[in-house]
Amino acid sequence: MWPDRRLLDLIGIETPIVQAPMANVPYADLVIGACEGGALGSLACAMLSPEKAREQMLVIRQRTSAPVNMNFFCHEPAAPDADREAAWRMRLAPYYRDLGLDLEATVPAANRAPFDAAMCAVVEEVKPEVVSFHFGLPQPALLERVKAVGSTVMACATTVQEAVWLEQHGADVVIAQGSEAGGHRGMFLTQNLATQAGTFALVPQVVDAVGVPVVAAGGIADGRGIAAALALGAAGAVVGTAYLSCPEARLSPLYLEALAKADDQATVITNVITGRPARGIANRVIREVGPIAPEAPAFPHAVTALIPLRAAAEARGRDDFTPLWAGQAAALSRIMPAADLTRHLAAAAAERLTQLAGK
Amino acid sequence: MWPDRRLLDLIGIETPIVQAPMANVPYADLVIGACEGGALGSLACAMLSPEKAREQMLVIRQRTSAPVNMNFFCHEPAAPDADREAAWRMRLAPYYRDLGLDLEATVPAANRAPFDAAMCAVVEEVKPEVVSFHFGLPQPALLERVKAVGSTVMACATTVQEAVWLEQHGADVVIAQGSEAGGHRGMFLTQNLATQAGTFALVPQVVDAVGVPVVAAGGIADGRGIAAALALGAAGAVVGTAYLSCPEARLSPLYLEALAKADDQATVITNVITGRPARGIANRVIREVGPIAPEAPAFPHAVTALIPLRAAAEARGRDDFTPLWAGQAAALSRIMPAADLTRHLAAAAAERLTQLAGK
Repeated sequence: MWPDRRLLDLIGIETPIVQAPMANVPYADLVIGACEGGALGSLACAMLSPEKAREQMLVIRQRTSAPVNMNFFCHEPAAPDADREAAWRMRLAPYYRDLGLDLEATVPAANRAPFDAAMCAVVEEVKPEVVSFHFGLPQPALLERVKAVGSTVMACATTVQEAVWLEQHGADVVIAQGSEAGGHRGMFLTQNLATQAGTFALVPQVVDAVGVPVVAAGGIADGRGIAAALALGAAGAVVGTAYLSCPEARLSPLYLEALAKADDQATVITNVITGRPARGIANRVIREVGPIAPEAPAFPHAVTALIPLRAAAEARGRDDFTPLWAGQAAALSRIMPAADLTRHLAAAAAERLTQLAGK
Repeated sequence: MWPDRRLLDLIGIETPIVQAPMANVPYADLVIGACEGGALGSLACAMLSPEKAREQMLVIRQRTSAPVNMNFFCHEPAAPDADREAAWRMRLAPYYRDLGLDLEATVPAANRAPFDAAMCAVVEEVKPEVVSFHFGLPQPALLERVKAVGSTVMACATTVQEAVWLEQHGADVVIAQGSEAGGHRGMFLTQNLATQAGTFALVPQVVDAVGVPVVAAGGIADGRGIAAALALGAAGAVVGTAYLSCPEARLSPLYLEALAKADDQATVITNVITGRPARGIANRVIREVGPIAPEAPAFPHAVTALIPLRAAAEARGRDDFTPLWAGQAAALSRIMPAADLTRHLAAAAAERLTQLAGK
């Protein structure tokens, strides 16, 4: 039924859909639902401890025998920069004052650790069929351990150059992340946001440049998008934002409300939430301080100073400082459980492909 | 053969391809070639006088009986702003010095006039089957005259809001221009570049919002892209940059060389060339002064001060100040005559659609 079976056969899934790992939605239930619907379910581990990641994977393994993807960040940790963090706190000081918060109070450090030996040990134990990486690939020794497990390695490219680099360094599947995508840009060989390409332009150029299967990401939220990704030469499609509205994603009412109101102009790429460019729904801090603030500390240190602001604003029912990651096709989302959504997406894509052939 | 015949039947063309009007390529030969290949050929009139537009249309009418599109800008002309223009000249002064040019020498004014009564008279005379507009729509009285000719009116939207506005104000076809597109952004209800959506996200949302046929634009340069546009719900696809390499486009060797070297990261959206955001290959002035310069005079007045710089640099074989409009899929271009390219694109798209149905 599907025109390109490379991803399906490589991973052993029924439909060419990858449920995107989303670091703020690290829930086994969502992964299980996507798997049950026939997609590749992805557990986002970037904000989980190794213990918690292991625990979630054991829950997933109990409830589904389908292939599963564990996703990790593999950024170079930036050294703390006291001057820049002080400048950042000064920039945010008016908000601290408004909310009656103490600018000097200690806040917990940001918990987005790159993939390391402890996480690798979890991978070795739970043996996920797929391991995917954001921001490049981990150190060769760690990558070799992942490969020794037998996991298929997927990694994210935002340019042709990054795609070629990933293939050369061991990726079995390249995710081509167009500028429409929600969440963090996977960019790791470039810092230039102005030259990041849209999905439509990026996917065919990546397909032409690498030999491994390419999965398209960015702006794909319905059957039309999945069909279009396959038309461009992708072997599969990553769907992220559309899964956010699933009950299994356990979004806060504030986040759900922002998503429900999002139109095509709702999101921007911003660095003010974490220090690294990511697409989300523009809220007060993004509009007033960003979307790009040169003084934001390096990833993930920009988060730290926002934590007290976010907590205080959310207590008042406001999303002024809340990360509202979402892609440009958020408005195409439909609210249903993850397994149903997956089956719906697959059926709609298959129907679209049949229609396209002129019946 | 084509899954959606609305555009084909409305306009009377054979293939769902629109050769994009490109203001710097206003040549009858390119239009004729596209028409001969079965696409909708488009004469870009934004930089032509009414006399010249009439003359080109008469040439086209002599050589093809296929439907033709005349394209116009319909921006609100900005009043000259002496202070801002002085600031702009100061910003460019080092380049004037480097090239041994006199900053005070008079230069010809920019010649990008909006659609007006004189152009409308040409439309009434040559009766193009299609008239398309960029930057909104002309005044109601002028639009009514165009409609009275019987021309199908197409207009460009960069957001869902613009698409709905265009339909409500008389557009018969909406072009959904994703951020990948080369040349000027058609934006007219928003000035916010940060929220401009990619083709993948924009097209299905526009399709859902309007009742008229939607044509996708941006990042479409081969059969895969055309098939993908149709998958997203578009009734046709605009191909621009891919036509630039046709001999009929008569590009300068400098421009052709820049195009041939362009990869997925070559282009940016800039306002330094004309004062209005447009996507082109980043050259020296864009890199050093832009890509977005707040001090650039309003469209099209930023051009004026660049004219002597461009001429002097080009005489030295450099494209430092040359507009090199191109989209993010420039690298997918193939060099062949326009009629052959059109037939090749249509055949490749049709083959792709058949493949997608799993044969």
